[in-house]
Parts: sequence; structure tokens; C-alpha cells
Amino acid sequence: MTKIVECIPNFSEGRCKNTIDKLINTAQSVPGVSLLDVNADPSHNRTVLTLLGTPEGIKTVALSLTKCARDNIDLSHQVGEHPRMGAVDVIPFVPIKNISMAECIALAIDTGRTIAHELDIPVYLYEEAASTQRRRNLAAIRKGQYEGMAKKMQSPLWKPDYGHPVPHPTAGVVAVGARQPLLAFNANLSTSDITIANKIAKKIRASSGGLKYCKAIGIMLKERNLAQVSMNLVDYQKTSIYTAVELIKAEAKRFGAHIVGTELVGLAPAKALIDCAEYYLQLENFDYQRHVLDNHI
Amino acid sequence: MTKIVECIPNFSEGRCKNTIDKLINTAQSVPGVSLLDVNADPSHNRTVLTLLGTPEGIKTVALSLTKCARDNIDLSHQVGEHPRMGAVDVIPFVPIKNISMAECIALAIDTGRTIAHELDIPVYLYEEAASTQRRRNLAAIRKGQYEGMAKKMQSPLWKPDYGHPVPHPTAGVVAVGARQPLLAFNANLSTSDITIANKIAKKIRASSGGLKYCKAIGIMLKERNLAQVSMNLVDYQKTSIYTAVELIKAEAKRFGAHIVGTELVGLAPAKALIDCAEYYLQLENFDYQRHVLDNHI
Repeated sequence: MTKIVECIPNFSEGRCKNTIDKLINTAQSVPGVSLLDVNADPSHNRTVLTLLGTPEGIKTVALSLTKCARDNIDLSHQVGEHPRMGAVDVIPFVPIKNISMAECIALAIDTGRTIAHELDIPVYLYEEAASTQRRRNLAAIRKGQYEGMAKKMQSPLWKPDYGHPVPHPTAGVVAVGARQPLLAFNANLSTSDITIANKIAKKIRASSGGLKYCKAIGIMLKERNLAQVSMNLVDYQKTSIYTAVELIKAEAKRFGAHIVGTELVGLAPAKALIDCAEYYLQLENFDYQRHVLDNHI
Repeated sequence: MTKIVECIPNFSEGRCKNTIDKLINTAQSVPGVSLLDVNADPSHNRTVLTLLGTPEGIKTVALSLTKCARDNIDLSHQVGEHPRMGAVDVIPFVPIKNISMAECIALAIDTGRTIAHELDIPVYLYEEAASTQRRRNLAAIRKGQYEGMAKKMQSPLWKPDYGHPVPHPTAGVVAVGARQPLLAFNANLSTSDITIANKIAKKIRASSGGLKYCKAIGIMLKERNLAQVSMNLVDYQKTSIYTAVELIKAEAKRFGAHIVGTELVGLAPAKALIDCAEYYLQLENFDYQRHVLDNHI
């Protein structure tokens, strides 16, 4: 019964092929770890890797990747559409098979402590691994971004969980945590007006009265000249992908806009997608466990 | 490496609970065979069982079910919306895991021969197991239905593959075959006018110029007072569920009708449903193997 954990580190570099290749090579260098997906976005200026492996392998690869990011990404010169506070911005651990959330929390704590001590980057623990309620939400930790961190960390409220309360000069700070699987999902709009994406994001996200398990921001995709609603669906059983999509369509209508395409960042569980098929096909009496052949073989 | 075959026998009884229960009990009586789904439809007057098991187990259960159908269903009194020629109308074998189509053809031949010899029901082999091109298509074999079989079988063209060229007096004839997985999928319309379902079925099915891998007929669902387009999608990689659904919607519009709900009869592979999610969500750069988490664990 091999324990399998997913790790989806986000790096604040989505343009420089040389750096992205170094990250990919590092990600592929650890036995027992598979690199399942690479999503590099130049507008976001961010690369998201999806890794699956044993807890030991995942810890090793997370440390190697953090070192690689620290040595190759200089946040003091980085600009991009996606908010960021570190060269490696966030490292979540997700229980996939034969492993509990408690074990993923322990893995986050262990990895976070090692990053601070060996790589000199201050670490905040977040979500399930958070040391206080205030630090559960990644957006709250990241508020102020890289440029605001030096000042923010002076406050006792924002003393890091590990390391000194001073951002690494080039690599900033990193959030390390454990969480349930989430869906990172973006919808591209038929407009280059970023204010429309911002207004739609505000309408659909939980923090301003939208869908309870939806986080959303507007982002400008410069290379396609399109505005994008960039989302995290943190409980796709309760806030389905199609619900977010249909709400975006409804909000976009008032601006004469529509969705021109969507994208998954990383992987999605089959059920999250089949829930959408069930909705759009208007399936009656459908039972995921029973009616999907793959669940029986 | 256990060989797994799927068998989806169709019985011409969808109303009498007593008979359906006997079929279910028989289906559950063989070790190594799982009954995954029971779809009994009173308007169709048909019950479709979905079974998964080893080739040996599946042969045993197919014979037991055929005997049970022969002894409990009298086609000389049966009426229903779905075309039929036998108490057990059709018995397909589908390769699922560690088994080839050739092995499923051999299983169909072996089972068909035994049904004719031990249960006295004439057998046609169909689809991949067919003895001639003319017998590949189930609809061609069934044309004339139960009532027309006695005459049809006199023709040398329609001499059965096994058994005497005379239908069993109550159980008729049965088609036994091997085939790729298909999707049995029905769409219910917002009308009780069966002629609309018939016209739509004609437009979407291959035989009259519609979708190449779609078979379709109109059926009246008396218990809901709705007309239904009842389909087999025989290659869902090439003719997707959503393609059939969108074409039905387009055709229904001219009659001021729409789809009120759909139904899977039996099971569907995850990919067939996720293809629909990909379409309706407008996913860009989606790769089923890579982006579905379940394919990696």
C-alpha cells in the first residue's frame, strides 16, 4: 500500500524557457516521483508543476525545486499578472492514496522547516497546516506581495512559522501547506477589458458573496489580448465547475461578452468533469459510482 | 491477469416485477460475475442487465438467464415499444480487460451453439461474430420481429447459425454476438408526439444520412407521456454523446420541442462522459490521459 501524495508547486516564472527547463529537469530527477503536468503561462508569469509520488520522494523534490527556484528566479525584477510573494510562491501537499491529511500536514511542517533552515527562505504554513486561523487563507498571507513582505513581516502577527522575519532578497517568502484537492480553472473572455474580468471575478467568488468554494481574480492575458477569470474551486463536490462556468456566462452577458475557452491548470479528478457532463447532457438517475464502467474494473 | 468480459443481455420484459426479479436473482447466482446495472423500462417493455465477469462465469450466467427468459417470457403475448424477436433478444459480449475481440467472438460462438442445442432456441451470430456481412447488423436480423421470424427463417438467407429454422414458440430467436463497447443513450422530448421523435431519429441516424456511428428510433414513453429518441452510439470516440445531443436539440427546435432529460442504459466509459465535459466547458489543450488524475493512480 504505497502512500501517494500530490504536490503542485507554483513558481513565479512563466516566460524564461531556460529557467522553466531547469525546473522540469529537477522535477524529473527524483526516483518515485512523476511529473504529470507543466503549465507555464507568460501573462501570469507563473509555472505550475503537478507531481505525484511517495511522501519521501515528494519532500526531496520539493526541496530541490525550491533551491532551483531560489537560484534562478529573482523576484526583485519579476513582473506578471499573477500575485506572488516568492520565487517558489506556494507548495501544497494533497493526500491522494493511502495517506491521511494529518500525514500531509506533517509533511508540510517537515518540508517547511527544512526550507527555512537549509535554503534561508522564510516559510508560512497555510490551509490545513496553518498555525493560526489567520494563516489558513493563502491570499491573506500573500497580501502585499513580494514588495510588501519586508514591512509586513515586522508585525508579530506575520512572524513567519520558520526562518527569520526578513524575506530572502531574491526568492521572497514561500507558503507551504496541506489541503484537499482543488481545481485550478481559468475562463478566457471575448474581451480585452480587464475590468470586465475583475467585475465577473468579484461576482462569482465567495469573498464578495459569490459561490462558497470559489476564489477568483481577473487576469490580463497579454499574449492573446484577452481578459481571463482565473479561479480556484476548493471543493468541487459542492461548487462544481459547470456552476462557475454558467455564472461567468450569465455575468459576462451584461457586458456583451462570452467565454471563448477555458483551461485546467494541472489535473482534475474524473468525477469533477463527469459531474459537468451529467449537468450538460441532462442525465436522469445518473450515479457516478454505478454508471461509470471504469469504476468497476 | 484475470480476463474480464462485459455482457449486456436484453430481455423482452420490462413490466412484470416477478419475472424481472427472477432474472436479477439468476444474474446474481454465478460466482465471478457482478451485476452492475438493471434498466427495466415499462414502455420499451424491455430489461437490460449489465454484467461483468470472467469468460467462464459470463457463459454460465448467459445460459442460465436465457433459460430463465425462455421459461418466463412469452413473446406470443408480448407488446412493447421496442422492437424484439426473442424473450432474450440479444446477448452481446464485449472485451473489457486482458481479453481480445477474438476471444469474445469465440465466447459468442460457444455460447450460441450451447443455447441452440440445450435450450432449443435458434441463434443468429451478429456484429464481430457474424457468419456473413448481412448478419453483422442486429437491426437487419431483427427485421420482421418475432411475428415475422417463422416466415423469414424459411429463406436460405436467414437460416440460423445454430438450431432449427423455426422460432421457439414462446422465446422466438436470439442474436448472440461480440462487439466493441457501445453507449445506449436515450433523450426524452418535451412532446408526446411520437412522430417528432421518429423524424428526429431518422435525421440523426447513420442509415438515413445522419451521424455515422449512431443508430436511433423513436419510442413513446407511455408512463411519462413523452416521446423519446432511443439511441445506440456504436463508436463514441467518433460520434460523441454531445454530438448526438446537440443534433437532437437542433432538430427538435423546428418542432418547438426540446430535451427534458436523457438517460444512459447500462454503463458508460469515463472518457465518453469527459469528452462531453471537455466540449461543454470549452476546455482548451485538454488531454484525457494526462489531465485526469484518476488515470495516474
